[in-house]
Amino acid sequence: MKEMRYFYVPDAGRQTELPPDEAAHALRVLRLKAGDEFFLMDGAGSFFRAELTVTSAKRCMYAVKAVLPQTKTWNGHIHLAIAPTKMMERMEWLVEKATEIGFDELSLLDCRFSERRQVKTARLEKIVVSAVKQSRKPWKPLVHEMTDFKTFVESRQKGRYFIAHCYDDVPKEDLYDKLTKHSGNEDVTVLIGPEGDFSIEEVNFALEHGCEPVSLGASRLRTETAGLLAVSMAQLAFRIRTNETDLK
Amino acid sequence: MKEMRYFYVPDAGRQTELPPDEAAHALRVLRLKAGDEFFLMDGAGSFFRAELTVTSAKRCMYAVKAVLPQTKTWNGHIHLAIAPTKMMERMEWLVEKATEIGFDELSLLDCRFSERRQVKTARLEKIVVSAVKQSRKPWKPLVHEMTDFKTFVESRQKGRYFIAHCYDDVPKEDLYDKLTKHSGNEDVTVLIGPEGDFSIEEVNFALEHGCEPVSLGASRLRTETAGLLAVSMAQLAFRIRTNETDLK
Repeated sequence: MKEMRYFYVPDAGRQTELPPDEAAHALRVLRLKAGDEFFLMDGAGSFFRAELTVTSAKRCMYAVKAVLPQTKTWNGHIHLAIAPTKMMERMEWLVEKATEIGFDELSLLDCRFSERRQVKTARLEKIVVSAVKQSRKPWKPLVHEMTDFKTFVESRQKGRYFIAHCYDDVPKEDLYDKLTKHSGNEDVTVLIGPEGDFSIEEVNFALEHGCEPVSLGASRLRTETAGLLAVSMAQLAFRIRTNETDLK
Repeated sequence: MKEMRYFYVPDAGRQTELPPDEAAHALRVLRLKAGDEFFLMDGAGSFFRAELTVTSAKRCMYAVKAVLPQTKTWNGHIHLAIAPTKMMERMEWLVEKATEIGFDELSLLDCRFSERRQVKTARLEKIVVSAVKQSRKPWKPLVHEMTDFKTFVESRQKGRYFIAHCYDDVPKEDLYDKLTKHSGNEDVTVLIGPEGDFSIEEVNFALEHGCEPVSLGASRLRTETAGLLAVSMAQLAFRIRTNETDLK
């Protein structure tokens, strides 16, 4: 049985043509022809069953045969705000894995001890789209450009904000306990610092602005591992069970 | 403040000399001299405070000043048995991250649909040691050579065995629920299949040999992501809280 192909097409329901890179893949790698069926993902909650109608050397026109609205598999909104690591490949893996496991939004923080002040978000975006397709996520996580730490903290939106830090003298609670025990608000943002941690001034600034100080457990984790563990904790805390009857 | 150095020395308490690679690092990179202090990790539950006594061009003799027995931060024994991915770098990342987050044993499975039948475990072992040092783990996870799937299942040791698979028609329960709700036995082995999943014969063989069928949730995950999520679930289910009083 041939596996169905998925293409990522923003606003797929109102478009009639695959974007150039997806068209190139459809024509040159998959060798699709007029009449072949495939799925489109709009990254905004819908899949579409579609048929290739007309192709040229580089273009693919399609017609939507069915709209397939998807349902969310977790509650609330999981937002990871992290200081990018010096080695970009560690961030690339983080966004791939976080997308697979499931999250909603990525912010990049420019912190006092950051070892990286510039990030090509276009490349991260590309990895996110690839992981969205591979793991069949109906919603594509948002990726933001790098923001100054204080600006990010001051502009905080709705939901609960947590800051993970390693200072022994600033009391903190376990993130997973916080997420599971005080439920009801499932819009969360978790701030993860750079390799050298947040500065103590940054931690205090965040606390003054309503962030709750948290720990991710007893392990000493690299930045990107902390980011993925935070996403995994939120995912485990907020996931929606579709097969409750199976679970004893 | 200069951060303390950690060296990995199996049986450190009974040795008096750093292994060649650690000695080279101590001499050429860290430029340690006689009288300098550092920590040793034996990978078996103890740290040691030690002092460099005599150095030559390539050798470092040390004297242990204090034995520092460590305490476990999770209960039971977390054993991941996984079919290695085609791309070895995905396995390398998995062992690094699983070591950081915390697990006890890694087995590599040769399955019917495996895309990789040979693995240089020496390289994985090196990555595990590096992650043990970086994340300061008192116990080094065991790494085994590749085993045939059926041989592995038949030779099963103590504890509970779980097999994660994607077949819709074989009932399965959620791994995290299994780990948290039926507590008491915290020695677990989780089997994760290759990119093309276990064969249905392999799943049935495992079930006949007492494995419990499980799911890792609604997400479609890559092999290495499934492995890490399984380890994260076991870690969250079995971790020991040292600061219970902090937790409300």
